[in-house]
Amino acid sequence: MTIPLPAATLAQLFYDARTVQRFADIPVSRETLTQLYDLVRHGPTGFNAQPARFVFVESVDAKALLAPALSARNRERVLAAPVTVLIAWDSRFHETLPRLFPGFDARSFFDSHPALIESSATSNAALQTGYLILAARALGLAVAPMSGLDTTAVDAAFFPDGRWRTLWIASLGYGLADDLPPRLPRLAEDEAVLFR
Amino acid sequence: MTIPLPAATLAQLFYDARTVQRFADIPVSRETLTQLYDLVRHGPTGFNAQPARFVFVESVDAKALLAPALSARNRERVLAAPVTVLIAWDSRFHETLPRLFPGFDARSFFDSHPALIESSATSNAALQTGYLILAARALGLAVAPMSGLDTTAVDAAFFPDGRWRTLWIASLGYGLADDLPPRLPRLAEDEAVLFR
Repeated sequence: MTIPLPAATLAQLFYDARTVQRFADIPVSRETLTQLYDLVRHGPTGFNAQPARFVFVESVDAKALLAPALSARNRERVLAAPVTVLIAWDSRFHETLPRLFPGFDARSFFDSHPALIESSATSNAALQTGYLILAARALGLAVAPMSGLDTTAVDAAFFPDGRWRTLWIASLGYGLADDLPPRLPRLAEDEAVLFR
Repeated sequence: MTIPLPAATLAQLFYDARTVQRFADIPVSRETLTQLYDLVRHGPTGFNAQPARFVFVESVDAKALLAPALSARNRERVLAAPVTVLIAWDSRFHETLPRLFPGFDARSFFDSHPALIESSATSNAALQTGYLILAARALGLAVAPMSGLDTTAVDAAFFPDGRWRTLWIASLGYGLADDLPPRLPRLAEDEAVLFR
């Protein structure tokens, strides 16, 4: 059995963490990004399928490839961020299931229910994005997640073979919290929770 | 700027945490479940929409209502767990956007693009499930997430008005790790990550 983490840790992961607008001019090391993936991959997924794929966009050329798919405001943030991770899902994720989940023939299940491939992949890749955001904060990084981008354009630019499909993106770096707006409101417990 | 959390914390959240098969016969207090929701609601979501809804199934009656929608193995686990949280999404989540995201008329955006309501709600509720799983571990709880249940049957039993829709469930409690099978394999970095 484990014990509750201290208040300062809950603050770093949840209460004090914010979607930052700006990052310090400090690179994020490859070692840190490798550890970030190593943390994320330990999180549970349906059938242990781990359908999320991650493209760490670091170079000037790759940022330029991503920029046209973004709104003006997000483009500015991505070009200024040390690294932006493109979170995608593998449309053929189920092919690895005989190795990842050997106890049950889940590959055949998806082969015979192809309509479930996309819904299962996107919901589990979104679940893994939750792990990614908190793992990044655990490593001392700040995160600026963004949705609403032109995923078709990102797919054409990054995944021309059509196998990986973009879900959303998140910029990562060492955050500057000096110009943050007030936190947006959250739903009260009685709006979102029932006890039965 | 924040610093990386210590190795013991990363172990509690990721490396050593496991989907448990059994829980100790110890109740999970209402105070802990309230704090769990309070942590989860701080996590970022698209348009700050927080579309996930949570039903904490604690009573014998509510467990009996949930049981017929589960496979035999999951039924046994849910009936034995102190509490199981049903994670749902609100099909009218966008109605709260004028309050939750006052800077942009996101409600009209969804009203005029109704096909995006479900995809946005399910992906963001799945993202919030990632926060839930790690927040539970941060509070010293163990988690047994389950997908593949009969969501139509759960919806009929718990949400007869059709507004909230079931995504998946997770049992929560103080875990017993004595009979865990070996951890299932994870994808290597070069199978799931690109650096560009």
